[in-house]
Amino acid sequence: MTLWVEYSDIPIAMKSIGAKLNKRPDGSDVYTVPVLSDPNTGALITDSYEIACYLEKTYPEKPIFPNNSESMIRAFDSAYMDLILPAIKSMFIRCTEILSPASAKFFIEARSIAVPLPWDATYDEDWELLEKGYNTAYEWYQKTDGKWIMGNTFSYADIIVACWLLGFKRVLKADEWVLVSSWNGGKWAQLLADVEKECNLA
Amino acid sequence: MTLWVEYSDIPIAMKSIGAKLNKRPDGSDVYTVPVLSDPNTGALITDSYEIACYLEKTYPEKPIFPNNSESMIRAFDSAYMDLILPAIKSMFIRCTEILSPASAKFFIEARSIAVPLPWDATYDEDWELLEKGYNTAYEWYQKTDGKWIMGNTFSYADIIVACWLLGFKRVLKADEWVLVSSWNGGKWAQLLADVEKECNLA
Repeated sequence: MTLWVEYSDIPIAMKSIGAKLNKRPDGSDVYTVPVLSDPNTGALITDSYEIACYLEKTYPEKPIFPNNSESMIRAFDSAYMDLILPAIKSMFIRCTEILSPASAKFFIEARSIAVPLPWDATYDEDWELLEKGYNTAYEWYQKTDGKWIMGNTFSYADIIVACWLLGFKRVLKADEWVLVSSWNGGKWAQLLADVEKECNLA
Repeated sequence: MTLWVEYSDIPIAMKSIGAKLNKRPDGSDVYTVPVLSDPNTGALITDSYEIACYLEKTYPEKPIFPNNSESMIRAFDSAYMDLILPAIKSMFIRCTEILSPASAKFFIEARSIAVPLPWDATYDEDWELLEKGYNTAYEWYQKTDGKWIMGNTFSYADIIVACWLLGFKRVLKADEWVLVSSWNGGKWAQLLADVEKECNLA
């Protein structure tokens, strides 16, 4: 079961369930989502990566760091993020446009630490930069002999790629998502669909 | 057998053996090293990555892209490069100091396309930035249960890490390499030694 939380409610909601604080890059404390509460074990885990590691350990029958790939996937996460970063301001502005005022305020405060204001994006330029980034990601995927980044072996790397795509689909204007979907022969809409199916979310 | 070529002699030397041109990021042609001439097959291969792929195909008994990891390793290469890039000017200046005048001129012309002049590095700051980068690489390596980035499975990713370390060892002043060697409990001097041994270069 997924409980969605308004950005502005994250601190109070996470405190109330006893979630662990996370760390900002500067070392200061902050409550973040996602948090996993596992009814099978009672575990309460903060941070996407920690959750992934917990699931890998606790449910090894569905590996997401196969063949000792965890370190590689951390590096992959960083390299993939760098492809998106040049266009991130346009994405952030779209986020603020669909959030409640209180959540938009929270979002701007939280994200402007890493991406300083003003977020004066030029959309056309940003979608061009983003397309360039996805062309590089496409080259990576072309090097494998299957639909996943490790060929026929599904991994957390594919989840990382799909999560951003899902974000775009939810946050961008309809015609902007159509544009992203059209890149690289429809690779990204297909990958998102494949990951959703693989994770029983379709 | 390794034939070393002065930077300034690369074009004429590669042309004379009939090596293929490589591409700059802007699409223009350029002769580069390394080039592999394989006496077993007569193949002549330009570009580090192409050489790695050729060796993988031709000599599968020693895999360097195990478990379909080629795409991940390309992304890893990019993420690792980003850790080094903030300190690259200091590294480049050290290169120019040990090259012949003709090769230094060639090196500056070639590298200043991606890293524009002036190379006005402040060494202390750059070694701090580089240490920060290697702290991140250390976190990646800490996530595995072996000495390689994929645990006990050696790969081209470890070669990429080691190649830069070998570059530092050759190019930096002795006390600067001692400094790099001291980071993360000596991890980097050890990894370089491990890769050299694994590749029968020790």
